[in-house]
Amino acid sequence: LESGTFVDVKRMLNGLPAHDVAHLLESSPPKFRHTLWRMVDRENEGEVINELNDELRVHFLSDMNASEVAHITEHLEDDDVADILQQLPDAVTREVLEAMDHHDRARIERVLQYPDDTAGGLMNTDTITVRPSLTLDVVLRYLRRHEEIPKMTDSLFVVNRNDQFIGLLPLRTLLVSDASATVREMMDTNIEAIPAYMPDDQVARLFEGNDWVSAPVIGDSGQLVGRITIDDVVDVIREDADHSLTSMAGLEEDLDTFAPVFRTASRRAIWLGINLLTAFLASSVINIFQGTIEKVVALAVLMPIVASMGGIAGTQTLTVLVRGIALGHVTPKNGWWLINREVAVGILNGMLWACVVGLAASAWFDDWHLGLIIAAAMVINLVTACLTGAMLPLLLKRIDIDPALAGGVVLTTVTDVVGFVSFLGLATWFYG
Amino acid sequence: LESGTFVDVKRMLNGLPAHDVAHLLESSPPKFRHTLWRMVDRENEGEVINELNDELRVHFLSDMNASEVAHITEHLEDDDVADILQQLPDAVTREVLEAMDHHDRARIERVLQYPDDTAGGLMNTDTITVRPSLTLDVVLRYLRRHEEIPKMTDSLFVVNRNDQFIGLLPLRTLLVSDASATVREMMDTNIEAIPAYMPDDQVARLFEGNDWVSAPVIGDSGQLVGRITIDDVVDVIREDADHSLTSMAGLEEDLDTFAPVFRTASRRAIWLGINLLTAFLASSVINIFQGTIEKVVALAVLMPIVASMGGIAGTQTLTVLVRGIALGHVTPKNGWWLINREVAVGILNGMLWACVVGLAASAWFDDWHLGLIIAAAMVINLVTACLTGAMLPLLLKRIDIDPALAGGVVLTTVTDVVGFVSFLGLATWFYG
Repeated sequence: LESGTFVDVKRMLNGLPAHDVAHLLESSPPKFRHTLWRMVDRENEGEVINELNDELRVHFLSDMNASEVAHITEHLEDDDVADILQQLPDAVTREVLEAMDHHDRARIERVLQYPDDTAGGLMNTDTITVRPSLTLDVVLRYLRRHEEIPKMTDSLFVVNRNDQFIGLLPLRTLLVSDASATVREMMDTNIEAIPAYMPDDQVARLFEGNDWVSAPVIGDSGQLVGRITIDDVVDVIREDADHSLTSMAGLEEDLDTFAPVFRTASRRAIWLGINLLTAFLASSVINIFQGTIEKVVALAVLMPIVASMGGIAGTQTLTVLVRGIALGHVTPKNGWWLINREVAVGILNGMLWACVVGLAASAWFDDWHLGLIIAAAMVINLVTACLTGAMLPLLLKRIDIDPALAGGVVLTTVTDVVGFVSFLGLATWFYG
Repeated sequence: LESGTFVDVKRMLNGLPAHDVAHLLESSPPKFRHTLWRMVDRENEGEVINELNDELRVHFLSDMNASEVAHITEHLEDDDVADILQQLPDAVTREVLEAMDHHDRARIERVLQYPDDTAGGLMNTDTITVRPSLTLDVVLRYLRRHEEIPKMTDSLFVVNRNDQFIGLLPLRTLLVSDASATVREMMDTNIEAIPAYMPDDQVARLFEGNDWVSAPVIGDSGQLVGRITIDDVVDVIREDADHSLTSMAGLEEDLDTFAPVFRTASRRAIWLGINLLTAFLASSVINIFQGTIEKVVALAVLMPIVASMGGIAGTQTLTVLVRGIALGHVTPKNGWWLINREVAVGILNGMLWACVVGLAASAWFDDWHLGLIIAAAMVINLVTACLTGAMLPLLLKRIDIDPALAGGVVLTTVTDVVGFVSFLGLATWFYG
C-alpha cells in the first residue's frame, strides 16, 4: 500500500467495500490512519463511519459539523444512524436531526426513542407489509412494483388494518405456493414478534435459536414498528463476547487496538491505580507478620506461591461464571449448584497441590513443619478462591455491577489477603 | 419446572424449539440434566444434540450406538452431521456412515473431506442452481416445482455447464425484475465465491463485511460444491470470541458450565500445575536475596506490589494484542508500532505509579532510599511487562502457538521474575 502513488491508493481505497476500508483504518497506527481517512470520498464516508469501532467513529465524527453528519448518514439504515447519533453530544444530535429532511428525521426519531441496547434500538423501519386477505398473486405483483426489495428481506410482514403484526409470509413460501392462495392461508403465525423494549442480548439468543434472518419488532399495542436483521444481531453477539474479554482486563469494550500513546496510557492508569490500592492492602497484611518473616525468611520466599495459586484458581472459576452469566446459563437458582461444585473443585485441587507444594517446600528448606504450613495455607486459599470466584459474580450481578469488570480486582484482593494471612498466620502461630 | 408432573414436563419440553431444550440442558446440573435428556423424544434428539456445546454433545453421543446416531442425525444439515461425526472416534464415524443410506453418505462425505475449521467444513450441499440462459419466468416456474426452498436461501447460484460458479441471482432481484429477462442479464457477478479451504474465521469476516445471508463455496477448479449460511457463521464468531476468553484462563473453549466436579477439577489441575512451576521459579529468585530480606524485612512487605502491578500492566497489553490478532487487526507489519506504543505506555504509567508508590513507601517505612528503590523497580517492571505483553503474542503467533493460551503463563512468569529481581537486586546493591 505504501508504495503506490496517492491517486492509485485513493482509487483502490474507494473501490473497496466499506467494511474493508474500516478494517484498514482500524488496523493502522494514528498517523497513517489520518492520511487514509482523507482519501475516502465524501460519499463513502457514511458507510465507513458506520463500520468503524466506537472509539474511531467518535474520533472522526468530532471533526464534522452537524450538516456534514446529516449528509454522510443520509443513506445509512435507521438503526445505524441512531447508533451514530447516540454517540454524539446531545446538542450535536439535535442539530443533526434538524439538518435532516422531515421524512428522515421522523424515521430516525422513531428508532431513537428506544435505548440502543434494546430491540427498538436495533431495528430498521424498512418493512414490507401485506394484508392477510390478498392473494399471493397480488402480493407478487405488488412486489414487482418495487424498484428494490430491502436487503435481508426474507419475509413479508402480515398486518391487520390497525397495523398490528399477525404473521409472516416468507419469500420461500411465496415462491413455491399456489398463486391463488391467500396470504392468510399461507402465512406463518407461529412467530412471536419481538417487543421493542426486549434487551439486545435476548434478541440475539432468539435469532440464534430460531435461525432467523429478519424478525418483526412490535410496540406496546402490538403494532409493527420495524424489523431487526441478522447483520445487526451479529454485531451484538460480537460486542457481548468482546465485553467479557476486555472488561476482565479493565479495558473498555469495542476498543481501538491502535489508540495513541496518551489515550492508552491514561485509560489504563485508572485500572493500575485501583490495583495498586489492593496491592497495598495485601502488603499491609504482610506487614503485620514482619516479626515472623524476620525469624523465618523462607516464608518470604514461599508466600508468593500461595497467593498466586489462589489467584489462578479464582480466575478460572470467575471466568466460567462470567461466561455462564453472559450466555444466560447461570441463574440465581442454579447458582447454588455451581458454588457447591466450585468448593468441591477447590478442595480437590487444593489437596492435590498442597501435597506437591508441601513436599517440595519440606525438601527445599529441609523443614517439614514449613511444608505442613504451606500445604494447609494452600488448601485454605484455593477453597476460598473457588468460593469467591463463584459467589462474587452472582452477588455483583444481583446488585447490578458488571461482574466481568469488578470481579477480577475484588477476587485477587481476596486471594492475596487470604493467601498471606493463612500462610503467615499459621507460621506465626507455629514459629512465633 | 420442578413442580410439574412428568407427563406435563415431557410435553412442554418436546414443544420447545431444539435450541431452547439445548439451553436448558446446558443450564442444568448433571443429575437434572439426565432426567431431562431422557424426556426428549427420539425424533427431537438430533436437533437438540446439534445445538449442544461440544462437551455435552460428546457426552450424550457416547451412550448411543452407530445406527442410533445415523438415525437421529438423518434430518440435520450436512455440515452439522459432519461436525457431530468429527467428534466421534474414527471407528464409530465409519460405522455411522455405513449405517446411512447411500445418498446421505455421499453428501456427508463430501463435507467430511474438508477440515471442520474451513469453509468446506461449514457448508451444506442444499444449493439451488440455475443456468445463465434461462429467463426469470422459467426460473420462477422451476422454483414453484420445489416442494420447499431450503431455509436461509436468499440467492440462487448460477453455474455453467461444467458446474462452475459464475454468479448469484438474489431472490430479491428475481421478485422485482421483468420476467422475460434472462438470468445472465440479471445475475450479480461481483460476488467472489468462497474457496473450500478458506479458514473459517476469514469466512466469518467476509460474511460480516458483506452482510451475506448465504454464500457459494467452490472447489479447486471453480465448481460449486455447496453453500455456507449465516447461522453457521454466527457459531464461528461466537466460538472464536469464546476462545480468547477461556484460553486466557487456561480453560477449554465451548466448555460446559455445569461440568461435574471430577472432570472440572482434573482439567483445571493441569493449568494450576503449570502455574505452580512458574511460581516456584519466582520463589527461587527471591531465595537468592534471602540475606537482604533478613536485613530489611520491609522488602518482603513491598515486593508483591512490584510483581502484581507488572502482572496487571502486562495482562492489559496481552489482552489488547490477543484480541487484535483474533480480529485480524494486528499483522507482523503493524506489530512494531504496537510494541513501540506499549513501551511508551509502560514508561508513562511506570513513572506515574513509581512516584506514587515511591512516596507511599518512603512515608510508610520512613526510608526514602526504599522509596527510590521501589520506584525504580516499578518503572523497570512496568516497561518489561508492556514490552513482553506486546512482543509475546506476536512471537507465539509466528511459531504457531496460541497466544491466548500460552501468553498469560509466560507473561506472569516474566513479570514476577523481573519484578523480584529488579526490586530485590537494587535493594541488595544498596543495602548489601
